[in-house]
Amino acid sequence: MTASSRDRTDDDSLRVRARVRATDRQWVERVLQATGMFRDDEIEIAGDLVDERIADGKGSGYHFLFLETVGETLGYSCFGPIPLTLGSWDLYWIAVDPRRQGTGLGRRLLRDTEEEAAAHGARKLFVDTSGRAQYLPTRSFYEGCGYSEAARLIDFYAPGDDKVIYVRDVG
Amino acid sequence: MTASSRDRTDDDSLRVRARVRATDRQWVERVLQATGMFRDDEIEIAGDLVDERIADGKGSGYHFLFLETVGETLGYSCFGPIPLTLGSWDLYWIAVDPRRQGTGLGRRLLRDTEEEAAAHGARKLFVDTSGRAQYLPTRSFYEGCGYSEAARLIDFYAPGDDKVIYVRDVG
Repeated sequence: MTASSRDRTDDDSLRVRARVRATDRQWVERVLQATGMFRDDEIEIAGDLVDERIADGKGSGYHFLFLETVGETLGYSCFGPIPLTLGSWDLYWIAVDPRRQGTGLGRRLLRDTEEEAAAHGARKLFVDTSGRAQYLPTRSFYEGCGYSEAARLIDFYAPGDDKVIYVRDVG
Repeated sequence: MTASSRDRTDDDSLRVRARVRATDRQWVERVLQATGMFRDDEIEIAGDLVDERIADGKGSGYHFLFLETVGETLGYSCFGPIPLTLGSWDLYWIAVDPRRQGTGLGRRLLRDTEEEAAAHGARKLFVDTSGRAQYLPTRSFYEGCGYSEAARLIDFYAPGDDKVIYVRDVG
């Protein structure tokens, strides 16, 4: 096996798991920390969502997908329906282990997330991100995956830190 | 006393109450129902926020103002800081008893709400509303109160029902 074939994302050993396990919180927090993109309070909220899903099931409003290979979790997404809308969903989190980034796993996970959301009635998937320079790779990722900028809220997160809302039709 | 003086909103008997009472839920649900602008599931959520505030206090993240005159509640607002932002607040609900609409009470309540939010550190107050024709008076109200359209998310609430996001600097 060559390095390039090892990195292929249509690797037969890749699978997606929707069931959330108690041990997932620790993995989520560790990987979000490792990306270097999130503050501690943001990471804690991401961890809380795992617990809420385990405690309340689908009633929590949070869906998860974990992308795995044999004996290893590679990435995850957290998403769900936006209350009081018909078919608008939010992608709350998507992250790939930094050691495995750049190999198409994020794109694969995003496509699986769109399909899963659509299967539950999603028409549109929204993603909020930051307009800061640090998030340029993130915005490029969404644009490369077919997302378009739906709105930009100036100074939303903080002075100088806009919120950029991306959307894609998935229904 | 003339009818026009009775309708003045700088009536000395008007006062604003920030403390939430157990009986407020019933009033909120009755008045939202009376406006004819909201669905039952939306009204239930508005009521739930009253209970959450009573149960969790300021930790709930929900602030309330009730506009009252002697022996009567005239209107209310529900607002709070948007998590993970520095100084961005959302106005979740604002409503005036339909029997007292058109007398400037909504504008008075909105100004009080902005001041209360700013006193707690708000820089900006965001309001989401619908782009449907039915909400034209609502949008005109915000525009007349100094709010500007920050974004419009097409088909957000449902096909043909956009979300319009208004914002005003209050800090």
